[in-house]
Amino acid sequence: MESTARLSDGGQARIVFQPEGKRGVFPVGTTIMDAAREVGVDIETICGGKLTCGKCQVIIEGGMENLSPVTEDEQRLLDKKKAGKNYRLACVTKFYGDVVVYVPEESRGGEQIILKEGVELSVEMDPAVKKYYLELEKPHLKDDLGDFERVLNALKKDYGIEGVDIDYQVLRKMPDVLRDNDWKVTVSIWDDKEIVDIEGGYTAEEVYGLAVDIGTTTVVGYLTDLRTGEVLAVDSMMNPQVTYGEDVMSRITFAMQEPDGLDKLNDKIINGLNKILEKACQQANISPTKVSEVTIVGNTGMHHIFMKINPKHIAMAPYVPALHQSHDVKARDLGLNIAEGSYVHVLPIEAGWVGADNVAVLIATEPYKQDEMQLIIDIGTNGEIVLGNKERMMSCSAAAGPALEGAHIKHGMRAATGAIEKIRIDPETYESTYNTIGNAPPRGICGSGIIDAVAEMFRAGIVKKNGRFNLDLDTPRVRETDGIPEYVIAWANETSTGHDIVMTQKDIREVQLAKGAMSAGAHILMNEMGVDKVDRVIVAGAFGNYIDKLSALIIGLVPEVPLDRIDSVGNAAGVGARIALISRKKRKEANEIARRVEHIKLAVHPDFEKEFTRAMFFPHMEKKRYQNFDEIIRSR
Amino acid sequence: MESTARLSDGGQARIVFQPEGKRGVFPVGTTIMDAAREVGVDIETICGGKLTCGKCQVIIEGGMENLSPVTEDEQRLLDKKKAGKNYRLACVTKFYGDVVVYVPEESRGGEQIILKEGVELSVEMDPAVKKYYLELEKPHLKDDLGDFERVLNALKKDYGIEGVDIDYQVLRKMPDVLRDNDWKVTVSIWDDKEIVDIEGGYTAEEVYGLAVDIGTTTVVGYLTDLRTGEVLAVDSMMNPQVTYGEDVMSRITFAMQEPDGLDKLNDKIINGLNKILEKACQQANISPTKVSEVTIVGNTGMHHIFMKINPKHIAMAPYVPALHQSHDVKARDLGLNIAEGSYVHVLPIEAGWVGADNVAVLIATEPYKQDEMQLIIDIGTNGEIVLGNKERMMSCSAAAGPALEGAHIKHGMRAATGAIEKIRIDPETYESTYNTIGNAPPRGICGSGIIDAVAEMFRAGIVKKNGRFNLDLDTPRVRETDGIPEYVIAWANETSTGHDIVMTQKDIREVQLAKGAMSAGAHILMNEMGVDKVDRVIVAGAFGNYIDKLSALIIGLVPEVPLDRIDSVGNAAGVGARIALISRKKRKEANEIARRVEHIKLAVHPDFEKEFTRAMFFPHMEKKRYQNFDEIIRSR
Repeated sequence: MESTARLSDGGQARIVFQPEGKRGVFPVGTTIMDAAREVGVDIETICGGKLTCGKCQVIIEGGMENLSPVTEDEQRLLDKKKAGKNYRLACVTKFYGDVVVYVPEESRGGEQIILKEGVELSVEMDPAVKKYYLELEKPHLKDDLGDFERVLNALKKDYGIEGVDIDYQVLRKMPDVLRDNDWKVTVSIWDDKEIVDIEGGYTAEEVYGLAVDIGTTTVVGYLTDLRTGEVLAVDSMMNPQVTYGEDVMSRITFAMQEPDGLDKLNDKIINGLNKILEKACQQANISPTKVSEVTIVGNTGMHHIFMKINPKHIAMAPYVPALHQSHDVKARDLGLNIAEGSYVHVLPIEAGWVGADNVAVLIATEPYKQDEMQLIIDIGTNGEIVLGNKERMMSCSAAAGPALEGAHIKHGMRAATGAIEKIRIDPETYESTYNTIGNAPPRGICGSGIIDAVAEMFRAGIVKKNGRFNLDLDTPRVRETDGIPEYVIAWANETSTGHDIVMTQKDIREVQLAKGAMSAGAHILMNEMGVDKVDRVIVAGAFGNYIDKLSALIIGLVPEVPLDRIDSVGNAAGVGARIALISRKKRKEANEIARRVEHIKLAVHPDFEKEFTRAMFFPHMEKKRYQNFDEIIRSR
Repeated sequence: MESTARLSDGGQARIVFQPEGKRGVFPVGTTIMDAAREVGVDIETICGGKLTCGKCQVIIEGGMENLSPVTEDEQRLLDKKKAGKNYRLACVTKFYGDVVVYVPEESRGGEQIILKEGVELSVEMDPAVKKYYLELEKPHLKDDLGDFERVLNALKKDYGIEGVDIDYQVLRKMPDVLRDNDWKVTVSIWDDKEIVDIEGGYTAEEVYGLAVDIGTTTVVGYLTDLRTGEVLAVDSMMNPQVTYGEDVMSRITFAMQEPDGLDKLNDKIINGLNKILEKACQQANISPTKVSEVTIVGNTGMHHIFMKINPKHIAMAPYVPALHQSHDVKARDLGLNIAEGSYVHVLPIEAGWVGADNVAVLIATEPYKQDEMQLIIDIGTNGEIVLGNKERMMSCSAAAGPALEGAHIKHGMRAATGAIEKIRIDPETYESTYNTIGNAPPRGICGSGIIDAVAEMFRAGIVKKNGRFNLDLDTPRVRETDGIPEYVIAWANETSTGHDIVMTQKDIREVQLAKGAMSAGAHILMNEMGVDKVDRVIVAGAFGNYIDKLSALIIGLVPEVPLDRIDSVGNAAGVGARIALISRKKRKEANEIARRVEHIKLAVHPDFEKEFTRAMFFPHMEKKRYQNFDEIIRSR
């Protein structure tokens, strides 16, 4: 391109945007930003040309002499942002002749960010809430336009945004916020549709959201920067509903039997979330009222109780939820103390107990985009299992109970300091070695330790295929207490509790029930799908990262696959909640996939009893399910 | 058309809809309703083919033999509706060959209704809330679709409605309502966008709304049938905010000076509206929770206070409102006790004090569609004046005060039994004759009586052009009490109060101030518009119907026009609120006209003082304003 065309015919000039190559012809004196908007090149701006944010830096590749001169204000901002030579700000730079403009990665809208939390996923930043800084013309007698219309005009003029509504409570406070801040304000717009907040001054770079995973046992909140996707703080707590029942069914029963049962359960979780919100915000040193959106995932029971919807119908055949699709509810209607006009986005649910938490796992792991047949097991009090690939997806839920998380186990405990997290047993001597969290003297056994213990006891021959103890071994570690067989993992003098830490026959039984339910679910899905084996197993769940994969294989918690085909992705439900918080495209995907997954109801499946009974064995009653088991067990 | 094509080529058949003449070709076996929908003929149905409503009667003009036979159910409904020969129900009647169908007036959607309340206006019924009856398939294990999605599917199948959202509180109750009513329910949809209610059984013919006019002094609610436009009940009360100030300014001052002033004022009106709602519903024997929408009109001050928006900025230059355009707020956010998910539609405001009440007057009288130059004066505590035609519209507001409504007048009273509403004075004898409301002995004088009294006193020469009493007359009726001149309208022995009913010099002054403000406003608008005379004067306001037009002319409350060019339209603001309740098209028109009217601020207009002073005279200081005044006064 020649840059000689300083004034082209009729006062027009050409502009080319790299690296996309989009181009157009505009009247001379057009700003680079306006031209970009016109030809559909997305350049970041959050101050709308007020020379506040400096986000719209572009590199001039040709035609530098055809640009408006750099003003002092622009130069100051370029310096502050440490911009290189040939950099200009698109919002204020006008072109008077042909130019070639390169839009660098960091100035492009919809930046890709890479999430690495067990899963590794590239997500394009497109949160529902965006903030826009406005400097309004002050009204006077000859310009007495109403406040809301004045804001709308500025949004249109500075950002090309039209047709937005306003939340009633935000409308109420708007007149005072405008006047108290000299008509310089930042408005938050939700889903391009509605003004959900107005703040004084320039706050366009402070956009926060909270992603929440409501587990039956544990609730986690991730305070997230909605401009970068970065997690600023994490806070978690035991689900405060546990006082009304340990598993979902007992809580639903409570909701059904007590006249105000649902209200009480809902109160507990809402208060809990407000506490998480407060603590996470404290860590990050921001006010909870600066949080502009919340995303929620949880199983169907948690979902309904959170939304204060009577959960009884999901507990009775035909187990129909109130809704499948995602729903946006005003935070104030739910009682969450975030910015007043803000929404809570509750993710869609699949069917039965397979709820928004599983949908979150799916959008975080994307099995529906794969060729290979993947099995995803999300271990929790209520376990969810998904099998499929890009052709077809199936899911079921298995009431595993909280045993794998350490509950109902004599010396089970949560993953905290002093918890035995890893165990090995010498098959010759039956002696144990173990690691504890924080290398402290042991206090109990956490989830990964429990799976290790059972796998090692089986491998050493301390328990048999059917889960019964072998009491004929020559070791003091295998004994009976009050007629119940047990194995001593740590002697009293090694522990901080002053008593032996053991695994009992009853503990083994609890693990068998839990893993039997999960395994039966997986095998029923495989039968329904018509596959003998899966290509990959993905283990999700809060403690999925810590599970010894080989131990999981040995007890038959997962179907047989080569060890390197088992991936742990940690709390993928939480990751999915975070993804939904930063990407509207992924929300859409969530709604689509939630309806695409075929749901199998284990409780009424004709094969369930049979499969469950067989799956209680280590690794399974049917040898053909674990054809290479000898090899597997030898690989330790 | 030949009806021989019982089975046309490829199993297609032609259908023609009269009187519109729209036509199409469809597969044989299509229902008349489906074909009508496809070609864009709007046939009423509210049961969606459930054979409940019988609204979709059509007359078969040709091809009777090509139709599916009449079933027993259809016949029963046709009989019940007393349908004539050749009538069929479009929803269930299938055609297997060519047919000609006449859609009678009463079966067409969007029926025109004629409002006759001072104004006479034809409005097409198109309320924002419509109800749809659904009979859903019960879920079972092989069909476990969620409740909301099940409802959406039925809405699509039975009514062709797609893409609606649901109110959170309605979603919450949906599961129980469905199951408690054997999956037969009626849903209310607001603005084709959102399900705002769900009720058990068939309630599709019970759709109600409340239109409210919040006057500074009087609040009126019209309970309206949203299917017919009929007013089922009217209830009114004194604006309960009067305890905090008689006029808008004093209430705004209260809101500004008391820390919780706005809350108190808002509470008063919300509680008042809930009472009106309850009483009107009691009259009509329906539950307030059956009311699906409320429309609100009121001046800018009443508007802001109702919406709980700080009104101080509309009282201080440059008098900027929080918003101009209409706004839909959830009734629960405002505290109105109608159906839980419902909206309140607050009409748009113009500028200054010229608020939603004036916009309502405009959509009820439509001056912006006329060729002739119309002046609309809405008499109230705060008076609004609009001048214009289809080319241009201007408005202003005049602080008339409540004198013309009977307040601040020694023996003024509201229009109730015993109020003197009409007065004549013999110019020879100065004797008075009068009518009272209910023909009861007089207790006081209401608005129309006050205007009559002043006009007649002026005509008889009892008061002079400048408003001063002529104390030289030979009649005992003109006298001084405590040094203040007064005229006795009724002697004590005629009244129920036991004392004389009089008009004092101070009363005359109050009327002069009120009429002076209104008249000055009208003349300033005429100057701004550049017109010497208007073609028509429309008098609106609660008591506009009762004002003697000639008396209004004599005192100069209205500019000079021939007597037959003065129309009284009563409470046109209330009519406008009713129109907005039944027509979305008129809502749109309201938003458009609200922005089109040019607003003149009398308070800062350079000519106001001068015009006001001159307009205090009877009929006006400037003779040229009332060139034919002698003729006017002789016409009595």
